[in-house]
Amino acid sequence: MSTPSSLESLIEALRCLPGIGPKSAQRLAYYLMQRDRAGARQLAEALQLALGALRHCQRCNTFTETDICERCLSGKRDASLLCVVETPVDMNMMEQTHAYSGLYYVLMGRVSPLDGIGPSELKLDRLLERASDGSVQEVILATNFTNEGEVTAHYLTEMLKNRSIRVSRIARGVPVGGELEYVDPGTLAQAFRERRPLAE
Amino acid sequence: MSTPSSLESLIEALRCLPGIGPKSAQRLAYYLMQRDRAGARQLAEALQLALGALRHCQRCNTFTETDICERCLSGKRDASLLCVVETPVDMNMMEQTHAYSGLYYVLMGRVSPLDGIGPSELKLDRLLERASDGSVQEVILATNFTNEGEVTAHYLTEMLKNRSIRVSRIARGVPVGGELEYVDPGTLAQAFRERRPLAE
Repeated sequence: MSTPSSLESLIEALRCLPGIGPKSAQRLAYYLMQRDRAGARQLAEALQLALGALRHCQRCNTFTETDICERCLSGKRDASLLCVVETPVDMNMMEQTHAYSGLYYVLMGRVSPLDGIGPSELKLDRLLERASDGSVQEVILATNFTNEGEVTAHYLTEMLKNRSIRVSRIARGVPVGGELEYVDPGTLAQAFRERRPLAE
Repeated sequence: MSTPSSLESLIEALRCLPGIGPKSAQRLAYYLMQRDRAGARQLAEALQLALGALRHCQRCNTFTETDICERCLSGKRDASLLCVVETPVDMNMMEQTHAYSGLYYVLMGRVSPLDGIGPSELKLDRLLERASDGSVQEVILATNFTNEGEVTAHYLTEMLKNRSIRVSRIARGVPVGGELEYVDPGTLAQAFRERRPLAE
């Protein structure tokens, strides 16, 4: 007598989106059906297309529509360097620096025991295999400097040590352009501890 | 070299959702493709289904999968009363009160000049036609007490007057269980103005 079943199903389905509760899902469903049917149709098609086309690169694990992504296939990258990041977005951020010409491995997540994501959920054995292929000389850990990112970096260090692969971590410190007044004490303490010699 | 095109399209398509900007769309797309492909599939199917099945009731304008919705077809409702609400959600709210047994008309929006929604966008002539079918004796305006809702109510009053149909507005005042201390001055002023006599 109240909500038609197809609308009910749509509201329910929209709840798969993170951060969308029952009220928001209802609002989104009404909006799509009342104000933007073209957008709704496009979204349905884009979802189907992406579900069909997207998989993980067999080498770097990022999203790709081919077996191995363009970057991994490119001969122009330094194959001795492997930078480990949490997400494809992080990888794009690194690329925008134009400061790195090696290859990547995208974890597609982070070790996060509270969310039930451990080393096996992240398939870290695939990273180990990738790093042990003979070409990689240095693994650069570029996970976030959050608790989970640090735990992940620690775990990876343990996993990779004693394998004649150098393991490094990108530097922490005061951001470029940063004023000490506005930097948090933790970052500042780290910047002290990891200070670099300039002159003797 | 960076984002696969199907992923790019998905990110773009997710932006049709109100309140979702480029960063959120990216986050949602990665989440769906990495963590909840089943949810993504369900969402795509629910969208397609709803797009195919949902239309507007020819009498009350709410979402329905049939020409005329169950409520309008029901013989148990008082056909002399027509309650005008902005959205199907509002209609559900009214139903939950069990205080009303008449029929409804759902505007599917409100007059909102700033958003380019005027009387013709709301197809108010359909409401006029519905209210003039001979059976309706009173139209109860239950649009929101927001600026847009009040403007809509005002517009509808003008449209419906001098047609030998009673037009009324649901009451404003202090909410049931409300403490005066926490009621805003506007509501309180209205409660004064619309006070009801109890004893002489």
